[in-house]
Amino acid sequence: MGSLIEDIRKEQIISTAITTIADKGFINTPLSEIAKEAGISKGVISYYFKSKDELVKKVMDKILSDSKKYINKVVAGEKTASGKITAYISASFNYMEVNKQHFDALVDLWGSITAHEEKLNFNKKNYDPCRHFIEEIIRAGIKSGEFVSIDVRLAASLIQAVIDGVMIQWLFDENAINLKDARDEVAKVWKAYFFK
Amino acid sequence: MGSLIEDIRKEQIISTAITTIADKGFINTPLSEIAKEAGISKGVISYYFKSKDELVKKVMDKILSDSKKYINKVVAGEKTASGKITAYISASFNYMEVNKQHFDALVDLWGSITAHEEKLNFNKKNYDPCRHFIEEIIRAGIKSGEFVSIDVRLAASLIQAVIDGVMIQWLFDENAINLKDARDEVAKVWKAYFFK
Repeated sequence: MGSLIEDIRKEQIISTAITTIADKGFINTPLSEIAKEAGISKGVISYYFKSKDELVKKVMDKILSDSKKYINKVVAGEKTASGKITAYISASFNYMEVNKQHFDALVDLWGSITAHEEKLNFNKKNYDPCRHFIEEIIRAGIKSGEFVSIDVRLAASLIQAVIDGVMIQWLFDENAINLKDARDEVAKVWKAYFFK
Repeated sequence: MGSLIEDIRKEQIISTAITTIADKGFINTPLSEIAKEAGISKGVISYYFKSKDELVKKVMDKILSDSKKYINKVVAGEKTASGKITAYISASFNYMEVNKQHFDALVDLWGSITAHEEKLNFNKKNYDPCRHFIEEIIRAGIKSGEFVSIDVRLAASLIQAVIDGVMIQWLFDENAINLKDARDEVAKVWKAYFFK
């Protein structure tokens, strides 16, 4: 039973870290601040996470895995490759819209990854699986005759790129770009590009 | 003459700050480290910049204005709207490729902008002018009959978004995406979308 309580406590610390980092910025968020916001002592955080770096890694993992879980579930509800690509794009924007704090924290934490090795690990753990997931959909669509033949790897990178790039503009100014319009337009752009 | 020497000294501090932040990360770069790398005393930096925040602002301005200057010059060399849009995309990627450290530092520093007000200012100073510049080109192309009629503001946002999104994937792993291929493919995507 101890393990269940420990998991809940860990989740609580990670959630508090996300909102605190989103609100105050990574650089202004010592562990003591997260502890204060979570209503626990700093010692409790140190018990669950061996360093701030360790907590940061778990925070980034949590942000990205929650988002991925949601998107994958929406995509799985579609049968055709064209349905799945459109669902991937829509789900990405819809998830973003209701989880702004997560992406505020994420972009803040990107900057905390500095060493070359850490960057490669982050890429391997996060971007690679996203791109592979999109690649598989495009490959299936080419096979089924829904899509024209294109450079699958590059197209997957570009689809992810436009989603991330819109997110950044929106994080800097929510009024600069309407996420729903962007969502529909991005879907149209890719339709024009590789749907038969 | 003092003013010219001061300008040169300021530029030198900013350039050293860019490479040091790109290399060690913003969070691990106190002013004393930049001073050490520049071979000057910390007091000299404090003489030119009233705080680390002030220096960071100048660093971000420098990274973005250098890039903008280069891109605008390339775009100005084209006569048609279609030529200008393609030039904007190509120049953005070409500049990125030879100035990786600048973008490493930029993404690191994005995270340092935390307050809502600072974000809006950054947007106003940087994203807005980029988007307006692209908007003007698209508007001219619709008028000249080169482009179909589209939502100009949104299209401008999406073009900038895909460029920024590719940059991020490339910063996390240079081998994950080939910038030259991305450059050519992004140009093709937009051609398919709104060129007549």
